[in-house]
Amino acid sequence: MTERKWLSRRALLAAGSLAATGAPALGAEPQGRRLGEGRRFYGERSPFETSARSFGASTLPVPTGASRTPLQDLFGIITPSALHFERHHSGVPAIDPAAHALVIHGLVEWPLRLSMSDLRRFPSVSRIHFIECAGNGGREHRGDPGATAALSHGLLSCSEWSGILLRTLLQEVGARPTARWIIAEGADASRHVRSIPIEKALDDTIIAYGQNGEALRPEQGYPLRLVVPGWEGNVSVKWLQRLQVAEEPAMARDEAAVYTDFMPNGRSLHFTFEQEANSVITRPSGGQHLERRGFHEISGLAWSGRGRIAKVEVSTDQGRTWHAAELQGPVFTKALTRFRLPWRWSGGETTLESRATDETGYVQPTREALVAKRGLTPGPDGFLHYHGIKRWFVKASGEVSHV
Amino acid sequence: MTERKWLSRRALLAAGSLAATGAPALGAEPQGRRLGEGRRFYGERSPFETSARSFGASTLPVPTGASRTPLQDLFGIITPSALHFERHHSGVPAIDPAAHALVIHGLVEWPLRLSMSDLRRFPSVSRIHFIECAGNGGREHRGDPGATAALSHGLLSCSEWSGILLRTLLQEVGARPTARWIIAEGADASRHVRSIPIEKALDDTIIAYGQNGEALRPEQGYPLRLVVPGWEGNVSVKWLQRLQVAEEPAMARDEAAVYTDFMPNGRSLHFTFEQEANSVITRPSGGQHLERRGFHEISGLAWSGRGRIAKVEVSTDQGRTWHAAELQGPVFTKALTRFRLPWRWSGGETTLESRATDETGYVQPTREALVAKRGLTPGPDGFLHYHGIKRWFVKASGEVSHV
Repeated sequence: MTERKWLSRRALLAAGSLAATGAPALGAEPQGRRLGEGRRFYGERSPFETSARSFGASTLPVPTGASRTPLQDLFGIITPSALHFERHHSGVPAIDPAAHALVIHGLVEWPLRLSMSDLRRFPSVSRIHFIECAGNGGREHRGDPGATAALSHGLLSCSEWSGILLRTLLQEVGARPTARWIIAEGADASRHVRSIPIEKALDDTIIAYGQNGEALRPEQGYPLRLVVPGWEGNVSVKWLQRLQVAEEPAMARDEAAVYTDFMPNGRSLHFTFEQEANSVITRPSGGQHLERRGFHEISGLAWSGRGRIAKVEVSTDQGRTWHAAELQGPVFTKALTRFRLPWRWSGGETTLESRATDETGYVQPTREALVAKRGLTPGPDGFLHYHGIKRWFVKASGEVSHV
Repeated sequence: MTERKWLSRRALLAAGSLAATGAPALGAEPQGRRLGEGRRFYGERSPFETSARSFGASTLPVPTGASRTPLQDLFGIITPSALHFERHHSGVPAIDPAAHALVIHGLVEWPLRLSMSDLRRFPSVSRIHFIECAGNGGREHRGDPGATAALSHGLLSCSEWSGILLRTLLQEVGARPTARWIIAEGADASRHVRSIPIEKALDDTIIAYGQNGEALRPEQGYPLRLVVPGWEGNVSVKWLQRLQVAEEPAMARDEAAVYTDFMPNGRSLHFTFEQEANSVITRPSGGQHLERRGFHEISGLAWSGRGRIAKVEVSTDQGRTWHAAELQGPVFTKALTRFRLPWRWSGGETTLESRATDETGYVQPTREALVAKRGLTPGPDGFLHYHGIKRWFVKASGEVSHV
């Protein structure tokens, strides 16, 4: 332990004056000398913390729309529930859980109406998964990159979800052999509906009532939602009130008209469920500023709707060379994965970008490769399922920018 | 999928009327028909949710004291930051992070004063660990068991902590070969001080600035704290402002006078750091009520300061027979571990209790075995390090109680 490694010579000089005094020099303005605040029943963050969801520009009538998670301010893989991104089509309903129920009917032996209390009696699970809006990165696709990680990738969050596996409930109601789809309906004013193939319903789909240890937040579907791991966010139906077991999908508005992908040949894709391997450097990222040359940690998030992240590579030289980043373990399937790489900034202009590979071997493509495949014609809900490599620009001033 | 498994005959009868209608009968009072609320910059929980930290009886002057996590209301393993237990000796200081610094001095080559901005440049980690107050369960020890899981075991919480490994900083300042202890000081009014052996400091101790994705909460040490995984909570010094590298411990008040364990022979133990293997059933638990006979899921939390939980056994018949509970994976070291066991309540009086075994083979003892070893003379801060088996009583009425 005799070699200083991380801090710059400038920091060492500053520290030298401390050594010269022979005694610990505390902050110039010692804080906390007075008796502090008392206990609280339910805590709040420090008033010095102001990180917030960003609304961006929206042409939608209030209160519909989206808000984005400030990924650039966050640590680890858990998104604070207060900062989980929002996307709703008719506002956030205020639902009394005592009056809420889930109806399961259709191709089943025993249709059921389950109260929240009934649901709490079933065997439960808790799992860490990301949820990402299909439209995340849409502005990157159309060539108008987001100025911050929130604006470029912030329709993305990760929570510990608690609830019941949907397959447990399907066993309970006795789904019939002809069942092929589950049609889920929310209790928001728009009665949002999506259809899910029976295979996914019997795999890892969760009927969730808990988020990060406590009840779901209202904007995340309180008191009950679907969590369909790895799939585009809007199939994880919030404020869930009805599951119909059926032979055919509902062909609801949000799967037949919007939330479809336009292709260059003029056709469109329906039921493009899986979110592909993706990543973004969150620190340093757009809007941040490198105060000093020397060591900085590059840190970011990678994820894939197809399983675990296997590898993240980072380039700090316009993509000429790539370095394997460290992945924070354990790596969960269909969850945000934190990656980190030590980096020494020499003070000049450079670029920072990351490239994820998932356990299926799928490698995150460049924007150019995606555009060649998908074209530049937006669908009715904009560009969906964009997952191209994101490049940040570091200026000589230390400013980090999207251009 | 033709056999109903979990719900009672009574629930089936209720569901039958639903089948008879031939169409889904939604709730009698459909909710969410009107346009809902708009987006928010920083979310809040539903007004229908009222779970809170409990203060219990305290004879300490305000604002010092403790508040307890409502374990009985929580899901999974992450404790919502707003419900993380509190224990502070002189209130919660309001610290401006821009004026806060960490000084490292003593037996080091290069003493340093590090701003929060400096600290963010070092290689970081995020890890899920519990923190438990040494006094957790003290009332169980003295034979006055808590009426709820909060009151019996609620000085216990678990978070994803983000920050820097202490060993990274000790390498940076060049700790000298004679260094044996790290003396940590907080910036609260009492200037709380604890000493940590160098081996633990070089192992898994974290200088944390993040909690569950965002900055530490004020009552958890904002903007900087130690997290000493698996050890009694008060060595995880909050509002951390100073680390002195030394040959001897400070023998500070909270390690020489209080936070010591009285033994039956009249002597007391100092530096009893590790929290032993422990567990508690949180559902059904004291204060809850079983509405119906039939299937209920038993769920609870187990933890050990010595590593991973290897096994949790549950008895529902006064300890005559024990059944292995399912552990929610991945099981993290020195983290809360959720266990679950399906159980069918026949409607009569019974008991529910859990027994944890950790990866070292240590088996959670009965209260009787602990009292035989530790006696019934409280130390200056009450009974510490209690970890006996907790038994809940189920009455024929369905009421769950501590007696």
